[in-house]
Amino acid sequence: MQDYNFIPGGITAPQGFTASGIHCGIRRNKTKRDLALIFADRQCAAAAVYTTNAVKAAPIYLTIEHLSDGHARAILVNSGNANACAPGGNDAARQMTAAAAAALGINPSDIIVNSTGVIGQPLPIDTITNAIPQLVENLSNDSEPAAEAIMTTDTFSKSAALKCIIGGKQVTIGGIAKGSGMIHPSMATMLAFLTTDCAISPEMLKLALKTSVNRTYNRISVDGDTSTNDMTAILASGTAENAPITEKNADYDAFVAAITAINLKLAKDIAKDGEGATKLITCIVSGALCEDAAATLAKSVISSSLVKAAIFGSDANWGRVLCAMGYSGVQFDATKVDVAFASKSGRVDVCKQGMGLGFDETKATKILGRSEITIEINQNQGKATAEAYGCDLTYDYVRINGDYRT
Amino acid sequence: MQDYNFIPGGITAPQGFTASGIHCGIRRNKTKRDLALIFADRQCAAAAVYTTNAVKAAPIYLTIEHLSDGHARAILVNSGNANACAPGGNDAARQMTAAAAAALGINPSDIIVNSTGVIGQPLPIDTITNAIPQLVENLSNDSEPAAEAIMTTDTFSKSAALKCIIGGKQVTIGGIAKGSGMIHPSMATMLAFLTTDCAISPEMLKLALKTSVNRTYNRISVDGDTSTNDMTAILASGTAENAPITEKNADYDAFVAAITAINLKLAKDIAKDGEGATKLITCIVSGALCEDAAATLAKSVISSSLVKAAIFGSDANWGRVLCAMGYSGVQFDATKVDVAFASKSGRVDVCKQGMGLGFDETKATKILGRSEITIEINQNQGKATAEAYGCDLTYDYVRINGDYRT
Repeated sequence: MQDYNFIPGGITAPQGFTASGIHCGIRRNKTKRDLALIFADRQCAAAAVYTTNAVKAAPIYLTIEHLSDGHARAILVNSGNANACAPGGNDAARQMTAAAAAALGINPSDIIVNSTGVIGQPLPIDTITNAIPQLVENLSNDSEPAAEAIMTTDTFSKSAALKCIIGGKQVTIGGIAKGSGMIHPSMATMLAFLTTDCAISPEMLKLALKTSVNRTYNRISVDGDTSTNDMTAILASGTAENAPITEKNADYDAFVAAITAINLKLAKDIAKDGEGATKLITCIVSGALCEDAAATLAKSVISSSLVKAAIFGSDANWGRVLCAMGYSGVQFDATKVDVAFASKSGRVDVCKQGMGLGFDETKATKILGRSEITIEINQNQGKATAEAYGCDLTYDYVRINGDYRT
Repeated sequence: MQDYNFIPGGITAPQGFTASGIHCGIRRNKTKRDLALIFADRQCAAAAVYTTNAVKAAPIYLTIEHLSDGHARAILVNSGNANACAPGGNDAARQMTAAAAAALGINPSDIIVNSTGVIGQPLPIDTITNAIPQLVENLSNDSEPAAEAIMTTDTFSKSAALKCIIGGKQVTIGGIAKGSGMIHPSMATMLAFLTTDCAISPEMLKLALKTSVNRTYNRISVDGDTSTNDMTAILASGTAENAPITEKNADYDAFVAAITAINLKLAKDIAKDGEGATKLITCIVSGALCEDAAATLAKSVISSSLVKAAIFGSDANWGRVLCAMGYSGVQFDATKVDVAFASKSGRVDVCKQGMGLGFDETKATKILGRSEITIEINQNQGKATAEAYGCDLTYDYVRINGDYRT
């Protein structure tokens, strides 16, 4: 992948975008922001991808309706309540959108809306609508309050931005994301929002977003649970004045590569911040017959509870890696597989052609003791490669999820 | 399901079967048995189902070869080492089988063999072959030593036996099983071995076993990891003198029902004894359009890390139940779904037609505080029902799997 120079600024890095995040009262803890807004100074091409969970939150349906024309100007999100499986959810989603539209002086159908938090409890809609004027008043060039307001069990906010050249013009892309538990994205992730000044048609923007999400958010897992509220959305204002991207060409490829760099950074941050996690696990599968097979194998490994617990315990139990590959559904020749563990403390080969190697356990424990671990798998069958990202399974994951609602 | 009178005796309950289990030295702890043998006094019809993991242990391949003629007389199993992905594994499986065949005076191809334990380490074959004479000498009518010798992280041994009438004759069926981690059976489970005096052809025995396993072991999950060594095998001696079962008839149905009762008892014991588990979770999905869909939904719910952690914390977080149904791959109408939690302490409705109900949290916490919890789901769409069985996710699961090898 191309090296990009990341810049500060997050979602407000591209000119013309402002954001705000406040505590409106959905969450009991007054130090936690729970309402976020992202606003563009003009109509943007807009696209989103959504959870494939058959049970979808009310705001997902409303956003699908609003984006049918491929355009939007704002993104409104609350945390602390998912507005999923809750009485009056559809009305609540429409009401919060209508209140924001009125305060912003735009059409409600130009707003992307979502919620994240507990499933099944009615959204406190008055609490939200009463706070909308303050939320709009707070709009500024600071991305951080919005990044914080979409957090749930996240321990740090997640944002990224970069500048690149597309069609001879400087293009800026910014993004924020949240996610820590219920993370096993399938066509989308928990929440990620991107902004850009790139000129691109709604159709190509949607295609670019889907392509990028498939290689980033769809390659991470925290606990195997695909959320009801997953959404990744992007607003593209076109003020970079590049020749508008309306077909698959070199500019389109450059744009996909750039948003993929942003999404990958945010996706890895989500994996690293997995509920209770102490280690980021990257699994690289090489020598595969095709990229999809490599990705499925890599994702199966980083999703295995047994692999995750072994990494937590710094135990080089590579047999669990082969076991997880074996039940992934991908057919492969187990007698050709090589496995190694690596980190900043070094690299150790543990399996060659499907058989265990004698290795220095002390060295392996030291390697696995670091906070970023790589599991390198070579299938030795083809030339395709893919990576997936996860985290270890810890006592804190159990603690956090044993009493999430209380 | 029919009510059966279970009897003591396990694997040696049917006449003509003996068993033994000893400590031979594969495991360091001398109080833990690690080698088991089950022996029939005559040639039996035999069948087995195996893991669908693409990475299979060496003894699985050898057993497939040995059962190609549909007959066997003995089952030989060690714990402490899985003989999977280990140098010399095929030879080791043949050597232990040959040693047992010589000591028993039977053909090696009449032995079903398996191993369970750590993946990737060479099997200490001399330790096993040296102990075979003692193992054969210890054969007796006591099933318990063999049930203990196949245990790994299990906290209790698992056995079951029953008598029933088939074709006007009294038929006895016995079984033992093991399994605690790496449990997410797919066409088979960790290890389960059954014996019976029923007269039945190898073809019908295999069909009966497959049918039964699909409704029992394939309905449990501890951690979503499908093992490399899963196997369920059955020996049928025919001494009950019922008219041999050679086709699908009433006797066949009675036999399937009876072995399903045994397998269900053993499967639920495995779920209850899941690594670190404090609670057995049963999920009943009713009102489904077909049994397969109901089973997939039920298994998705009991496999969810988030549902499992919530049950550990006695948290009636039913939104996670709907979420897990949603990503199961089964299409259903979320607006028709009812959910309730139940245990010996009572029953509480938490969701009606896909929406949260107000409910007494104190009562719900009390219900979820018991050691056996039922999640009742009604899809209200059809008439099919299925159950799946799992356990809670606890701190001890993480502890056990963070340092399994050390």
